[in-house]
Amino acid sequence: MRKEIYMHRLFFVLVAFLVGLSSCSSFDSSPKLANMSSPEGIISVDFFLSEDGQPHYTVSHQETMVIDTSGISFDFRDAPSLGMNMEITSIDSSDFEENWEMVWGEQDSVLNKYRELRISLVEGSSPGREMNLVFRVYDDGIGFRYEFPEQSNWDGEVVIMDENTQFQLTGDHTAWWIPGDWDIYEHLYNTTRVSEIDAIAKRDHPNLAQTYIPENAVNTPVTMRTDEGLYLSFHEANLTDYSGMTLKVNTETLLLESELVGSRDSSKVKRTLPFHTPWRTLQIAEKPGDLIESKLIVNLNEPNKLGKPDWIRPIKYIGIWWEMHLGKSSWDMASGKHGATTENAKRHIDFAAKNNIDAVLVEGWNTGWERWIGFPDREGVFDFITPYPDYDLEGVVAYGKQKGVDIIMHHETSAAPRTYEQQLDTAFALLTRLGIHAIKSGYVGKIIPEGEYHHGQWMVNHYRKVLLHAAKHKVMMNVHEPIKATGIRRTYPNMVTREGLRGQEFNAWSNEGGNPTEHLAIVPFTRMLSGPIDFTPGIFDIKFEDYPDRQQVNTTLAQQLALYVVLYSPMQMAADLLENYEGNPAFQFIRDVALDWSESNVLNAEIGEYITIARKEKDSDDWFLGSLTNEDPREFDINLDFLDEEKSYKASIYADTPDSHWDNNPTEIQILVKRVKKGDNLKLTLAPGGGTAIHFKAE
Amino acid sequence: MRKEIYMHRLFFVLVAFLVGLSSCSSFDSSPKLANMSSPEGIISVDFFLSEDGQPHYTVSHQETMVIDTSGISFDFRDAPSLGMNMEITSIDSSDFEENWEMVWGEQDSVLNKYRELRISLVEGSSPGREMNLVFRVYDDGIGFRYEFPEQSNWDGEVVIMDENTQFQLTGDHTAWWIPGDWDIYEHLYNTTRVSEIDAIAKRDHPNLAQTYIPENAVNTPVTMRTDEGLYLSFHEANLTDYSGMTLKVNTETLLLESELVGSRDSSKVKRTLPFHTPWRTLQIAEKPGDLIESKLIVNLNEPNKLGKPDWIRPIKYIGIWWEMHLGKSSWDMASGKHGATTENAKRHIDFAAKNNIDAVLVEGWNTGWERWIGFPDREGVFDFITPYPDYDLEGVVAYGKQKGVDIIMHHETSAAPRTYEQQLDTAFALLTRLGIHAIKSGYVGKIIPEGEYHHGQWMVNHYRKVLLHAAKHKVMMNVHEPIKATGIRRTYPNMVTREGLRGQEFNAWSNEGGNPTEHLAIVPFTRMLSGPIDFTPGIFDIKFEDYPDRQQVNTTLAQQLALYVVLYSPMQMAADLLENYEGNPAFQFIRDVALDWSESNVLNAEIGEYITIARKEKDSDDWFLGSLTNEDPREFDINLDFLDEEKSYKASIYADTPDSHWDNNPTEIQILVKRVKKGDNLKLTLAPGGGTAIHFKAE
Repeated sequence: MRKEIYMHRLFFVLVAFLVGLSSCSSFDSSPKLANMSSPEGIISVDFFLSEDGQPHYTVSHQETMVIDTSGISFDFRDAPSLGMNMEITSIDSSDFEENWEMVWGEQDSVLNKYRELRISLVEGSSPGREMNLVFRVYDDGIGFRYEFPEQSNWDGEVVIMDENTQFQLTGDHTAWWIPGDWDIYEHLYNTTRVSEIDAIAKRDHPNLAQTYIPENAVNTPVTMRTDEGLYLSFHEANLTDYSGMTLKVNTETLLLESELVGSRDSSKVKRTLPFHTPWRTLQIAEKPGDLIESKLIVNLNEPNKLGKPDWIRPIKYIGIWWEMHLGKSSWDMASGKHGATTENAKRHIDFAAKNNIDAVLVEGWNTGWERWIGFPDREGVFDFITPYPDYDLEGVVAYGKQKGVDIIMHHETSAAPRTYEQQLDTAFALLTRLGIHAIKSGYVGKIIPEGEYHHGQWMVNHYRKVLLHAAKHKVMMNVHEPIKATGIRRTYPNMVTREGLRGQEFNAWSNEGGNPTEHLAIVPFTRMLSGPIDFTPGIFDIKFEDYPDRQQVNTTLAQQLALYVVLYSPMQMAADLLENYEGNPAFQFIRDVALDWSESNVLNAEIGEYITIARKEKDSDDWFLGSLTNEDPREFDINLDFLDEEKSYKASIYADTPDSHWDNNPTEIQILVKRVKKGDNLKLTLAPGGGTAIHFKAE
Repeated sequence: MRKEIYMHRLFFVLVAFLVGLSSCSSFDSSPKLANMSSPEGIISVDFFLSEDGQPHYTVSHQETMVIDTSGISFDFRDAPSLGMNMEITSIDSSDFEENWEMVWGEQDSVLNKYRELRISLVEGSSPGREMNLVFRVYDDGIGFRYEFPEQSNWDGEVVIMDENTQFQLTGDHTAWWIPGDWDIYEHLYNTTRVSEIDAIAKRDHPNLAQTYIPENAVNTPVTMRTDEGLYLSFHEANLTDYSGMTLKVNTETLLLESELVGSRDSSKVKRTLPFHTPWRTLQIAEKPGDLIESKLIVNLNEPNKLGKPDWIRPIKYIGIWWEMHLGKSSWDMASGKHGATTENAKRHIDFAAKNNIDAVLVEGWNTGWERWIGFPDREGVFDFITPYPDYDLEGVVAYGKQKGVDIIMHHETSAAPRTYEQQLDTAFALLTRLGIHAIKSGYVGKIIPEGEYHHGQWMVNHYRKVLLHAAKHKVMMNVHEPIKATGIRRTYPNMVTREGLRGQEFNAWSNEGGNPTEHLAIVPFTRMLSGPIDFTPGIFDIKFEDYPDRQQVNTTLAQQLALYVVLYSPMQMAADLLENYEGNPAFQFIRDVALDWSESNVLNAEIGEYITIARKEKDSDDWFLGSLTNEDPREFDINLDFLDEEKSYKASIYADTPDSHWDNNPTEIQILVKRVKKGDNLKLTLAPGGGTAIHFKAE
């Protein structure tokens, strides 16, 4: 139910008398400041104009200031900067509260409750441009954005050369960060003090097909812990027709400042009035798990525009994919070991049909893979409709339909989005004809044309164009090498999942020996705050013994299972070769694990160290739990008070053994099936690099 | 390779000089005795004629006599008894050695190596009838039979009123026995001294639809342990055109004597010369597990007459069956809860297709179940071709074929074999048309006509007639309420399995509280010595909580898994309701467990206490192990020296937990997946009523 209560539309002249009313806006008699507290008063924002008329804000949590005086301004092409000599023309405040239903998600419904502070600003001197600054203050963080209204004294065309949004940190926090790469998010997370952030040192990573790190900046979400134990995470919400924001780091002053991703003409954003920016967001929590439970990012997006059609549904999938990463087969046919053959696809369909797997991804099905990575001219190579001669696309799809298994179409664009856009109509017409409702897309390589970046406005708009095209054709999207998630899934729930992080594939071939044991203890607190992750968990053959030139996965098998609960994705892969699942009782967890949830609780967590999440299956009484640790073994006493009252559960507990170890003995696992009920205590014992996965099956 | 070496065809007049040649026959100068030792000299048989010309024999194991002086004779209708005033006309001996391949079985090939002693006898007085006595002496036991040759002074018609074959025990052994019921084998095993055997007390069991125990006799196999620690098991092999043999027990003299099952005219057997009896067998072992490894019973049958057609293949099946025993549904339609509906059958097919299950049994599919148990006139009720209106037989079979799942046809005869025989052609024509290659048949109730018994010659011939009819129509048989197994499976490998024991179903409804914990620790050493058992293991919902008027299974869940290895059957059921398998990782064992073996080793055993068997999957490198115990918990240190050299195995160990208990906590189970290799030691910990099942998957 949507309860939208515009409370006080107050013009500053009228409200001079209202100073001190803390539940609404307040400012001094020379209308240069305003403040707003969150509904429970936990978080507050103060806004003020400095002496020279520059807008500033601060953010506090309880009595603690978490963002100190931070300025905001914009630079434009062929126009003066905006952000000096500003005057407040009005201050509006409102309360908002709604509960909205997730089409799919971490929980059934989301409380969207905030207090909004809307400050209308105008330049006090020529050219007298207007800009509104809107703060939404939640009990778990804030979002703010800039609105540029239509106005008489500003030409409709706006070319932003820089957005200068500052976040002045109040201390040298511990930060979990990846470099502010304009082309890729697939970096390992670094854990350093803010003063030690050195993104430049991360340039030219040899395992990245594209990377561009122009500044000492970080990508968002970037998460921090203050020495006082508060947790902060910076990100953005509803990134639409704008460039992605990195945060430039001043390691001396501990100032973060927005650095938008650029374009081939060096501008950052091109828009026409009226428009608004994405929300700049800051989540604030006393416990790291609260960052995960926060729904701030989706709340700051527009309501669902697609309804709840039946073609949008969470799916579990396997694929012809990991075998390419291991070198068992190849995407292209010239190699002589083409993976996407009719026979192999049918073998996957058979396995899926037998194992509660909804869909099969087939990569390398279409011609063009001989001119993929490393070829500068990749325009026009992929046509998205022509199968290789050894792949009977229609036959495979029909075979799948007969077995109740869907095919996930694969569209690798090789970062040539213009080619893809030219082919969109034919490509999606094929999907419609075949009755396919899911795509995994990819954007490997430097964007063509040169000078555009994966995270710039031009690509943001491309990704959105494809998403809307997909919606029109009843197709769900799983995007690799994507723009980061900013909560768009609320508005377009066919945006089901994406990569946008250092995924499982790096364990196969990265020259750093794969993802370190801490990686998956950081991801939930950073990348996962933005949205669902197609990490592709479920590797059982941890050491790749048949592929000795490859690396290994740096977790135990039990942790691979735990990932299905810890890492949220409504499109979740069982990534390993099918033969590695055959006969392993641990695979039962993958068969059973839910994809959609009515409730999610983080039971314990410390960033980079461990995390335990319990989630309740949607439309079911079953619960699932996932727990994982970094290099250190753990013992957790878990109270099962999250379970439902007066129900008995058969718990299947997939755990490390006393001998399990991510490196020495990663595949040893024990499964205990026992009855439990709400309030029981359960001791979890996690090996180094280990985990526990539990299915609580209601009886 | 068949090596048949007839050594010495010696007529007694010529061999008087050869006395003392222990490797062949020997007898005194008045040709009244002969002896024969087994190939390795472990077991020997002595034959002699008493003063009055009655044939007698003794059996020794090493230096120990195990069968003391025992006479043999026959009584006939309208003819004098045979067995007095006999004279030896010839003594032949021969050695035999072959290796024959099992079409399916506990092992790839069987060594059939014995020494044969053939004694030709003739009455010294009128009517001067001839009879041959043939002993086959193996290192693991003996078989002997009577041959009645065509002869000039004996009318071709023979009506045997009694066969008097004695087995004079040498001590008051501990015996594991069921009463010599002429109509059913579904009694609990009793463990008593021979002197305490009281079959009469077992009359009128309220849970048996038919039972007839005329004498203080036992059915075979009956197994014994001497106080010196030798293990004996008495049975018969190749029961063809003859009545089943029970063994009458003289509790005073400890003499067992054959008591054939009778018929409506009180005769026991009707034959025409020439003919021979089944083999009377005695297996002798120093360890109880050796009884199980012995192939004496199949060796004493004729070679395979069917070859190795592809329609004979081990299958794993589920069925619409247990739900009737729980009372969830019913066989008949009048009850209003008919189980065999199209929808339910398709649900089972779907489950089978997903879970490596080959076939679905559908009981209650055909009209007639309203006039089943308890109706005296059951002739003509079942026609074996007319489905109930809510069961689309052809649609179900077609749906199964589409999903790669076979239907097992069910033929319940309600013990009206004449009706069944009349319908055989139409019934099997339907199978041929539908492409069905397996039948479960049933014979519940008193045989019609009255006076015939399940185990008499008339029914032995009926069962055989159906078996041959099935072979002609390419159908495998799984017979319930059968004649006992006597190794016919060697000759007709479409005789794949049968009930013929107190199976799982008694756990649902017997008024004794189900099968006691010792039951399955006795069955392998008694019933299983005769051949494959359709016990229907795999009940996961041990306590039947949704069916409170029922009993429970008296094992742990882990023991239910162990049964798939311990109880040999090439047609093996996963008997529980499908919903009880969903989501339980322990079901993986049932998915994986093999049905056909290249090797079987009993690792440890004590009758009525525990047993551990390791079997190697045919045409695979995988091994499986099953271990179970009675009421007592056990710890076993198992050396894995049975595994193959230079192979690594991923062992999935399905075990009781420290808290498991057949009654207090039967469904708790733990599964450990770890690597092992030949020679490793593995500690098995079995709960009371518990077990362990292991899949050693070769890597």
